[in-house]
Amino acid sequence: MECVIGIDLGGTAIKLAQFAQDGSLLNSLEVPTPQPATPKAVIKAIAEAVRQLDPQGRAIAIGIGTPGPVDASGRIARVAINLAGWENVPLADELEGRLKRPVVLANDANCAGLGEAWMGAGRRFRNFLLVTLGTGVGGAVILDGNLFVGPRGTGGELGLITLDPKGHPCNSGNDGSLEQHVSVQAIRRRTGLEPHELAANARSGDPEAIAFWTTYGQELGAGLASLIYVLTPEAIAIGGGISASADLFFPALMAELERRVLPSSREGLEILVAELGNQAGCVGAARLAWNRVRGADLSDRSADNAPTPAATLDTETIVPGDRWSD
Amino acid sequence: MECVIGIDLGGTAIKLAQFAQDGSLLNSLEVPTPQPATPKAVIKAIAEAVRQLDPQGRAIAIGIGTPGPVDASGRIARVAINLAGWENVPLADELEGRLKRPVVLANDANCAGLGEAWMGAGRRFRNFLLVTLGTGVGGAVILDGNLFVGPRGTGGELGLITLDPKGHPCNSGNDGSLEQHVSVQAIRRRTGLEPHELAANARSGDPEAIAFWTTYGQELGAGLASLIYVLTPEAIAIGGGISASADLFFPALMAELERRVLPSSREGLEILVAELGNQAGCVGAARLAWNRVRGADLSDRSADNAPTPAATLDTETIVPGDRWSD
Repeated sequence: MECVIGIDLGGTAIKLAQFAQDGSLLNSLEVPTPQPATPKAVIKAIAEAVRQLDPQGRAIAIGIGTPGPVDASGRIARVAINLAGWENVPLADELEGRLKRPVVLANDANCAGLGEAWMGAGRRFRNFLLVTLGTGVGGAVILDGNLFVGPRGTGGELGLITLDPKGHPCNSGNDGSLEQHVSVQAIRRRTGLEPHELAANARSGDPEAIAFWTTYGQELGAGLASLIYVLTPEAIAIGGGISASADLFFPALMAELERRVLPSSREGLEILVAELGNQAGCVGAARLAWNRVRGADLSDRSADNAPTPAATLDTETIVPGDRWSD
Repeated sequence: MECVIGIDLGGTAIKLAQFAQDGSLLNSLEVPTPQPATPKAVIKAIAEAVRQLDPQGRAIAIGIGTPGPVDASGRIARVAINLAGWENVPLADELEGRLKRPVVLANDANCAGLGEAWMGAGRRFRNFLLVTLGTGVGGAVILDGNLFVGPRGTGGELGLITLDPKGHPCNSGNDGSLEQHVSVQAIRRRTGLEPHELAANARSGDPEAIAFWTTYGQELGAGLASLIYVLTPEAIAIGGGISASADLFFPALMAELERRVLPSSREGLEILVAELGNQAGCVGAARLAWNRVRGADLSDRSADNAPTPAATLDTETIVPGDRWSD
């Protein structure tokens, strides 16, 4: 059976998984990221792991999600967060030379969005956003069935949109960005607690923690309102670790969107929880590889009756999607 | 010569112009909008004006920019601001029945963006935004050479993005939207003066007026930063009446973008002043008509050597574009 390999390159682990064109997971492998994670060491580790996962060389293409911006053609990792000395690394060329198959790169958040669009929360939609609420806030934009990366390859930096121009400093320079309000780091800074502690407190009835999640949902809603007015997606999936608390902030989030967004911009909009968890990156990287060899439109995806990898990969669906009826 | 008609339907006037496929203006006509501007009266007035402009029926298609959202297929004016009793008016069908030619609709701000992309400030770019600073704030998104309207037809509501969630109430529901900071109405509300008065004061050295335009540029920059992070356009053109003061707020705007937006999201980005003034709507409506009969990609536009209608239509170029060199 024809297959591809999707790779999620992170600061501590390199995850690989082999997928058929219908999205079936064939096998997977996780190896530690070499330390220090220099380009040379990482390239060697990826090549060895690919040979270990696929000793017969069956995979016809390889997609890789990297932790930072890549160039518009998906060849060069421009920067890689938590890796050592990465600047404009020609990762695709280097690995194609070693593995003799097409290799294509994308930003890891974009890969996660592509994964959710293919096999997860976005599979029913041609216009879809993923917003990941983790240590930072990232995202991906699917427009008319294709991953949007824009002319510089860096489109869809959804966590860096402006929320309060006079807000907390942001490394990006965009002080008061959405990320400075709703990321794990922002939660720690503002409350001194971890998101899971605030969730436990809210679930045991602590009024302060309940109020925290209400404010959290409102701030997230004020940020998503911008994205909805510009992109008018059919659905937005919320991913990342904080999505485990979706039941606590979704009511305030939905009320805020209903208040802030004109019905003409949100008719039928669904707000969902992402389905593929931390496997979304591998799934999306595999889809990236299929796109490279078979064309980029997602319209061939198998929709609701697809064999969902969620059952075999380590994921969970937390709350059902909500939907406006107007 | 084959030609089309572009129509800009406004609350006080209906402007029509006939264009060849290379963008040459053939002739134009302006008639008053009937009062009250009921659907029936407006449809009759448009049909009569088309027959007056083009008595021999040479135009092979007609595009119309309407003052409000249209449906995704460009057939129905869902709402029309400053017209009487417009709700889901099947304007395209009604006029096709009378004029026996294809008719297609778009929101007037989207038409203006399409016009600038075809024959104005955006003609060198495949990824381009128009932001119009007028009584309200509108805009248009050109992605990969095509007008983006999204699955509901209402995409690219650039004036309604969030700037300060706790800011001034907005009719849209999105309190503190960009429009509530940088529109003519917002300027009046905040200063008691008209934009042209503030411009005159600043040009005669009034420190308060100079400070106003600095703050104005900073707020606009904080809003545009969101759009740049999401869409990473190659260029943004600033249109609308306030763009006449671009020289007063561009320095603060550019500094704010340089501070807030990561270089990887803005390399080569150009910030320009729109070129077609209040004729952009007619030009874009004509392009919409060409798209209807010839396909939607703008890549056939004649680029820099095109006969620019700016010379014959009532427009002006105010300041040259600025550009980052990184």
